[in-house]
Amino acid sequence: MSELSVKHLLGIKYLSEADIHLIFETADHFKEVINRSIKKVPTLRDITIANLFFENSTRTRLSFELAEKRLSADVINFSAASSSVKKGETLVDTVNNILSMKVDMVVMRHPNPGAGIYLSRHIDASIVNAGDGAHEHPTQALLDSYSIRERLGDVAGKKVVIVGDILHSRVALSNIYALNKLGAEVKVCGPKTLIPKYIDHLGVQVENDLNKALAWCDVANMLRVQNERMDISYFPTTREYTQQFGLNKQRLERLDKEIVVMHPGPINRGVEVTSEVADSDQAIILDQVENGVAVRMAVLYLLASKIDRNED
Amino acid sequence: MSELSVKHLLGIKYLSEADIHLIFETADHFKEVINRSIKKVPTLRDITIANLFFENSTRTRLSFELAEKRLSADVINFSAASSSVKKGETLVDTVNNILSMKVDMVVMRHPNPGAGIYLSRHIDASIVNAGDGAHEHPTQALLDSYSIRERLGDVAGKKVVIVGDILHSRVALSNIYALNKLGAEVKVCGPKTLIPKYIDHLGVQVENDLNKALAWCDVANMLRVQNERMDISYFPTTREYTQQFGLNKQRLERLDKEIVVMHPGPINRGVEVTSEVADSDQAIILDQVENGVAVRMAVLYLLASKIDRNED
Amino acid sequence: MSELSVKHLLGIKYLSEADIHLIFETADHFKEVINRSIKKVPTLRDITIANLFFENSTRTRLSFELAEKRLSADVINFSAASSSVKKGETLVDTVNNILSMKVDMVVMRHPNPGAGIYLSRHIDASIVNAGDGAHEHPTQALLDSYSIRERLGDVAGKKVVIVGDILHSRVALSNIYALNKLGAEVKVCGPKTLIPKYIDHLGVQVENDLNKALAWCDVANMLRVQNERMDISYFPTTREYTQQFGLNKQRLERLDKEIVVMHPGPINRGVEVTSEVADSDQAIILDQVENGVAVRMAVLYLLASKIDRNED
Repeated sequence: MSELSVKHLLGIKYLSEADIHLIFETADHFKEVINRSIKKVPTLRDITIANLFFENSTRTRLSFELAEKRLSADVINFSAASSSVKKGETLVDTVNNILSMKVDMVVMRHPNPGAGIYLSRHIDASIVNAGDGAHEHPTQALLDSYSIRERLGDVAGKKVVIVGDILHSRVALSNIYALNKLGAEVKVCGPKTLIPKYIDHLGVQVENDLNKALAWCDVANMLRVQNERMDISYFPTTREYTQQFGLNKQRLERLDKEIVVMHPGPINRGVEVTSEVADSDQAIILDQVENGVAVRMAVLYLLASKIDRNED
Repeated sequence: MSELSVKHLLGIKYLSEADIHLIFETADHFKEVINRSIKKVPTLRDITIANLFFENSTRTRLSFELAEKRLSADVINFSAASSSVKKGETLVDTVNNILSMKVDMVVMRHPNPGAGIYLSRHIDASIVNAGDGAHEHPTQALLDSYSIRERLGDVAGKKVVIVGDILHSRVALSNIYALNKLGAEVKVCGPKTLIPKYIDHLGVQVENDLNKALAWCDVANMLRVQNERMDISYFPTTREYTQQFGLNKQRLERLDKEIVVMHPGPINRGVEVTSEVADSDQAIILDQVENGVAVRMAVLYLLASKIDRNED
Repeated sequence: MSELSVKHLLGIKYLSEADIHLIFETADHFKEVINRSIKKVPTLRDITIANLFFENSTRTRLSFELAEKRLSADVINFSAASSSVKKGETLVDTVNNILSMKVDMVVMRHPNPGAGIYLSRHIDASIVNAGDGAHEHPTQALLDSYSIRERLGDVAGKKVVIVGDILHSRVALSNIYALNKLGAEVKVCGPKTLIPKYIDHLGVQVENDLNKALAWCDVANMLRVQNERMDISYFPTTREYTQQFGLNKQRLERLDKEIVVMHPGPINRGVEVTSEVADSDQAIILDQVENGVAVRMAVLYLLASKIDRNED
């Protein structure tokens, strides 16, 4: 198989296991190309990609932009701040307008869960979801699993704990889907108020004690604390969060094994992980960022090759 | 004739009929190239274009940026938000600074009517007016007439009604100039307080009853309602505006012909036009957007070829 | 010698005289290429440069961006306004994240003096300081000296007075270092409250009377008045500043020679210099802007060639 089963990347939920493996193998190829200091391949030379960010983002936008440029695509950037969205235009109208200018693919971040899915029913171009509210962030989950595979050889059979605010995290949900599909075992760990009620339906177990979770796992993915959500209704204080769910050297040394530490960034040093942990060899946080470009190149390349076939 | 009579595109007022036809024929060529999925031509490879937007814009800026990139020009973007304009620098100094960096053409949107004309007296590069206050928006009028020609075969002899806030609309003024030069008949229709007093001097008739205007016309260009200008001194409420000047299916069905419906965007669905009308086959709203890129490529190409000749 | 002695351009302080001459000769080459209307050289085709602007800037950012594009580098732009910096990430983490995406060079403007120096101790890529608080602005000083050399044949032996707010000016400090290294004589002139106490240690003399300074000098570099700093503790009013330290035609005509007038921009016309002076043949203000692109191309090219050698 050398083709994705989907036309869009709206969420990991809609990918097959074979899709994910195809993305990983394609990313392997692009990573090798980049490492040979060949920064640009002419693959998408006749493709125009619009990055539509209705929500601020630094790392995800830069990572997509680099991926697009390294594939030689033409790139146009659109951010909500300077947009007609403020003028009362509907999302479908805004995007259709951009597509009328012969744009082939849309990379979209949007504050509303399901924005990409809704859009895919009304427009013609390929859509890559770069984060839709608290719903999915599929390229983040792909680069996370890709990085586990790179460090541990495989994802299947590995034990992964996702730590933090599971309730509001699109990173958590997409990771759960990806890890399940790839055959990993998944637990979540965090304050009870930040664990969603539907968690059982996702094939995931809850472990409230971080030490027990660490003793069980091969990989700990430490979610970012969103300070704006840490209000009184969810959790007392950041300090108490760190005491219960923060990863430090002492916790790691108590284990009889070396687990892999991940973080989607940006890190609050001293909150989710201490600097000692973040900068240690067990942490693959910067590998995740590096792999993000190769994984996004793979996604864009594979979706673009489907566009071409449809047009013939 | 294969050359424009002007060095700048400051307004339709300064173009000859032959200029407009030359732009349309050049745009035909570029549209054909784009439709063959050849996204980039090397035409302006050694040209640097600065997009200077002293006012927010999404579609116009993106359309120009795509036109420039498809011509392989080097593009730099400048928006007032992050600019020295705030530091008290004069417009001529700001632009001269940018031109000193060997910029060949300037695409400028500015809130002040006549800003481009003023600038053209003080600087050396070619200027394309991308909207100057309530004055002109020449590329919008060119793409509008181009889209009428595409749909109806010709502009000459056609009857066009422009509906809405004529007083504050640079789209209306540029359209009136373009349609007059191309031999169309033009009427304007809108609230009396939003029809300028000088309208008789423009070779245009006023029709206050939308139904009569529709019965007369081949094309209805529905201007956007600028909510910020709909205050009490101009018009009671948006609802009353829609009752009198909004286009819906009932109004269209009452006619014994199929008129063409245009809108410069962004649409306030349910205000200037209903969704039924906007999404019908009579509406060429997305064609306008698509044609915008080809028309702007033509304008930039024709002005750039004059730069080259001057330098020889 | 055909190589810089440094890996970064953090400040003029760290350059040797030979480094500066090498930059100038390289800039001569690029300026000649640009003047032959060859806008792009393939020199940095496999280099990715990130422009990190933690402070607003128009001309410096545009000048770097043009320099990078004319060298065919891949460029990604990052501004603090839309960044994770707000989310509490450390500077080193932000930059390391960007570098993980295989970025080779960082051009950084930052409000904190020494931000580039600090960063250079923690990251691997080449850093170009595009202004760090009130500390240094090395490319501005290089283009200033380059412009003096262009107009007067040489910098060595020339008498240069820097006029204005010396205390807060990174332009002044970098210029003093550059002019000293190149063998010019330097005086500073400005309100006593805006002359730093350490000025004697910089090999610079103070002259409080502008007329005497002008009678002495070959070149007057008129610094921009930063209105936000002209509060009561430093100086009474802008009007009094102009009376004592503003350059007008009368002051120039009183001299028995034609001095060269410089300004780093943006100009407050009528404050630091009158329009008559700014637009006269004695002013090389737009030459400075033009030379800025060539000088920045030289700096980026020379630093990039060191990267390559390190990697082999």
